[in-house]
Amino acid sequence: MSPISQDMLNQTIKLDEIKPFPNSKKVYRIGTRPDIRVPMREISLSEQPSVTVYDTSGVYTDPKVTIDVHQGLPDCRSTWIKERGDTESTPDRSARRAKSGKNVTQMHYARQGIITPEMEFIAIRENQHLEDVRDVRQHAGNAFGATIPKIITPEFVRDEIARGRAIIPANINHPEVEPMIIGRNFLVKINANIGNSVTTSSIEEEVEKMVWSILWGGDTVMDLSTGKNIHETREWILRNSPVPIGTVPLYQALEKVEGKAEELTWEIFRDTLIEQAEQGVDYFTIHAGMRLPYIPLTAKRVTGIVSRGGSIMAKWCLAHHQESFLYTHFEETCDIMKAYDVAFSLGDGLRPGSIADANDEAQFAELETLGELTQIAWKHDIQTMIEGPGHVPMHLIRENMEKQLKECDEAPFYTLGPLITDISPGYDHISSSIGAAMIGWYGCAMLCYVTPKEHLGLPNKHDVREGIIAYKIAAHAADLAKGHPGAQVRDNAISKARFEFRWEDQFNLGLDPLRAHEFHDETLPKDSAKTAHFCSMCGPHFCAMKITQDVREYAQQQGIHDVNIAMKQGLKEKAQEFKTQGSKLYK
Amino acid sequence: MSPISQDMLNQTIKLDEIKPFPNSKKVYRIGTRPDIRVPMREISLSEQPSVTVYDTSGVYTDPKVTIDVHQGLPDCRSTWIKERGDTESTPDRSARRAKSGKNVTQMHYARQGIITPEMEFIAIRENQHLEDVRDVRQHAGNAFGATIPKIITPEFVRDEIARGRAIIPANINHPEVEPMIIGRNFLVKINANIGNSVTTSSIEEEVEKMVWSILWGGDTVMDLSTGKNIHETREWILRNSPVPIGTVPLYQALEKVEGKAEELTWEIFRDTLIEQAEQGVDYFTIHAGMRLPYIPLTAKRVTGIVSRGGSIMAKWCLAHHQESFLYTHFEETCDIMKAYDVAFSLGDGLRPGSIADANDEAQFAELETLGELTQIAWKHDIQTMIEGPGHVPMHLIRENMEKQLKECDEAPFYTLGPLITDISPGYDHISSSIGAAMIGWYGCAMLCYVTPKEHLGLPNKHDVREGIIAYKIAAHAADLAKGHPGAQVRDNAISKARFEFRWEDQFNLGLDPLRAHEFHDETLPKDSAKTAHFCSMCGPHFCAMKITQDVREYAQQQGIHDVNIAMKQGLKEKAQEFKTQGSKLYK
Repeated sequence: MSPISQDMLNQTIKLDEIKPFPNSKKVYRIGTRPDIRVPMREISLSEQPSVTVYDTSGVYTDPKVTIDVHQGLPDCRSTWIKERGDTESTPDRSARRAKSGKNVTQMHYARQGIITPEMEFIAIRENQHLEDVRDVRQHAGNAFGATIPKIITPEFVRDEIARGRAIIPANINHPEVEPMIIGRNFLVKINANIGNSVTTSSIEEEVEKMVWSILWGGDTVMDLSTGKNIHETREWILRNSPVPIGTVPLYQALEKVEGKAEELTWEIFRDTLIEQAEQGVDYFTIHAGMRLPYIPLTAKRVTGIVSRGGSIMAKWCLAHHQESFLYTHFEETCDIMKAYDVAFSLGDGLRPGSIADANDEAQFAELETLGELTQIAWKHDIQTMIEGPGHVPMHLIRENMEKQLKECDEAPFYTLGPLITDISPGYDHISSSIGAAMIGWYGCAMLCYVTPKEHLGLPNKHDVREGIIAYKIAAHAADLAKGHPGAQVRDNAISKARFEFRWEDQFNLGLDPLRAHEFHDETLPKDSAKTAHFCSMCGPHFCAMKITQDVREYAQQQGIHDVNIAMKQGLKEKAQEFKTQGSKLYK
Repeated sequence: MSPISQDMLNQTIKLDEIKPFPNSKKVYRIGTRPDIRVPMREISLSEQPSVTVYDTSGVYTDPKVTIDVHQGLPDCRSTWIKERGDTESTPDRSARRAKSGKNVTQMHYARQGIITPEMEFIAIRENQHLEDVRDVRQHAGNAFGATIPKIITPEFVRDEIARGRAIIPANINHPEVEPMIIGRNFLVKINANIGNSVTTSSIEEEVEKMVWSILWGGDTVMDLSTGKNIHETREWILRNSPVPIGTVPLYQALEKVEGKAEELTWEIFRDTLIEQAEQGVDYFTIHAGMRLPYIPLTAKRVTGIVSRGGSIMAKWCLAHHQESFLYTHFEETCDIMKAYDVAFSLGDGLRPGSIADANDEAQFAELETLGELTQIAWKHDIQTMIEGPGHVPMHLIRENMEKQLKECDEAPFYTLGPLITDISPGYDHISSSIGAAMIGWYGCAMLCYVTPKEHLGLPNKHDVREGIIAYKIAAHAADLAKGHPGAQVRDNAISKARFEFRWEDQFNLGLDPLRAHEFHDETLPKDSAKTAHFCSMCGPHFCAMKITQDVREYAQQQGIHDVNIAMKQGLKEKAQEFKTQGSKLYK
């Protein structure tokens, strides 16, 4: 039995009890050097070749590895980083940074034609070991201008990074990270937000939430902590996270001035950036596009400014009657980012907080500025993605995506949903996964999840699981609709298992094998029902799938070709009959 | 406190305990005659005019009405039916039917230019009492050719029915029904399936499921019972249902031959149609489009034939090597339908059961035949809608919708989802609501819900609630995206409440007020938190919305216009500064 039981939802996750999903095992594909060990999850099936899937869960699901959260994870990347010879220890030896005059971003290497181990790692990872089965039956898809090759090569990864169309969030101080890529020509990714707050949570809980998030499939995790112990919480999360960690440094800067936005300064912000960069944060949300002149554009909105970062900076701008220091000090920020390879996630401080405010002047003015800032970041070879909304009705999603691609020259888009209605509190993971699936299809590279608690409260573990699965659905549906090579392998496998009543295989190929198993048990708890050639919907005698199987068998008994011919023959006679009787039949 | 408590999810619903949602009351709008009493739900708000919403819950939420399931519901339509003078009692006096030679369908009346009370009822209902507020801020939408007037008039309803672009499922033997309409130029509707089965459920449970379904917003309910007591179960459901009831008569016919598909005959089927028509079933799913020559087209499918009706008939066709009797006896079926005003829901026996099989030759061959049958049904003035899939990747949904509109000449489309991936067992309400929202936007008139138990087991009450809310989201999102007049009123109201920290109003304007309230309580249980100007996400000091309010107040203190001008002025100076320093800043 799997140890990630239902009972654990409302209690602490015991990390040493976590094991792989049923019939899943961790496998590693080795690259051109032995320390490129790319993790995947292999799902064994009863009467079908195994299916390998992308695996975000790190060594937490590798039974060979003993986890000690106080020690942190094994280090995958230090050798690669040191080999490049362009970094040095900080004076207190607590972190690494670029040697003077050096730029240590993956984009910088890519533009010099260097394929890093990170890039090779990603190429292997993105292929999901599907090279051999990519010729399966799959719909062509409509990729809206994305150009996804059949096989992802390290050179393709390099080229996309050089072009700015994808990013590898991998701070040199986060060597524990298993490299991953965010870009429209790769698998659509999802982000899960965690974070303590003044009202609830503890550090341990936040680490557990991170682990819980990646078990279910979170590709990156944002730590949005705002309470006490921000630094320590982040340290725990980083040292134990195999996925990139993002933050909003402004939140910690605001802590340093005790919540008084008007007391923020560039210097406090800058020091916070360095502090977090040295800890290993992989991407920073920075709301540098929310400029002073755009603030009045929000006055007539239904929901004004709903982004925390945006509203903090709006308050600062008005208090000082000055342009945002995030904007005016953007190039100095770039100098910090490239010394650690922190990626920009340019925040949308003016994202719409309601359907009414979607795609308005304020939002698009900021987006244009984000495009301008992207060019500046790229001039510094800094990896950059762009954050997006929010709340957008379905018919305006494509316009939003297209404008982002145009203004930001295809820098990866990273959206929060969007929710396609405002009236679903308690179910916003659903309304936002609808928008997320659509924008992922149109070209969005990463989807920030929304949990059922959005707008209402802080998510617990159950909510995190619900939110992540809703977003795995959205991301995968986007891959399918884009025609991502190999995307349909898992769908075909689960459907075959379903049709052949291989219940366990069906559960195990699903995004949440435990939930599927549990739901089946609710109606038909007996073990024998797991091999039964019927299900609870129609019962043993009237099952549609069983009847189809009978039809096929019947056809085979007579030889399928004969049946076809016979039926065509029969039809011909029938047609003849219809011709003569037709006017009687349908008059 | 509301009586539909969480505790009730796993127990019998006590009908006499059901009351309206918090701050909601049942109101009736009266038409041109006093017996046209159109129910609506009025949500009272604390600092805003009340919002009136569409109400499917019947008198179950009218505290003035005492419910006795053994008596059945009060009768709304008998007078209207009798006044028309074209029906008579059946010989055993248990039901009504058309007088010899008469056609009693709403389509027949519509085509003669008659506006029935049902049509007027619907016009009032569709307007949702929003005539006065329809000029609110709302996005224009993209309706893909639907033409929804700003105000729905009885004449518009008549015209759409006459044209075949909408249907009013309202059997003359179901006088308890509160008339509703299904068509692309009206609000998108949803259907909930219930039904006992050989493995579980009881009659009482099925009636309770029906009531539960309409409480959450089901517009119609399909009774898919397959076990014993089919007739009695249906009788209970019909006598207590204010929404149209649909069935698949083939299921009961199959019971009569003890599950042996090959022993089915037209006569048994015909008698079953009459039996159910006399009970008052409002629409019949009939898989008359699945013809013999299409069966071989499914042989190479990943999931063959997954529709129960489709597979039963496929078995029959192969056993007899004959064309389906549903197809060959279609006109005789029409004669039955028009004697009771039962609407056709032409079934898609060859719908795809997997992504791989979507939009294939088999599916589209059947759809073309459904188009042919629609013309025949219309020739008889029989109201007709068309059933659709199933499993379809996002990029093929629009093709499916457009083909249906073309082949079936805009007869309403009624789809099951579609699911946009196969890999989400346990969460198929989410993957299917994504497809449902999209196809609703493109023109689908009614969305058949899918519960989290799809593919795994029978839904319990919790699953029904989850499925319905997921579909209310999809249907409403479709209305918004189409630009349905007034659709954004509720979104605007809830967003305003959210922005102003009117928590109770926010809960009550949501699709599930109880869930929203409960979720908020989980993090901040105190009553005072319901009026607090902050929430659990950011805590009292750093709330984004609070900061925006501060910004607005600050702006107002100085006079909003002055601030705008001042900022523009400031910007001008800044721009000058930038011009002189710009090359330094961004180089």
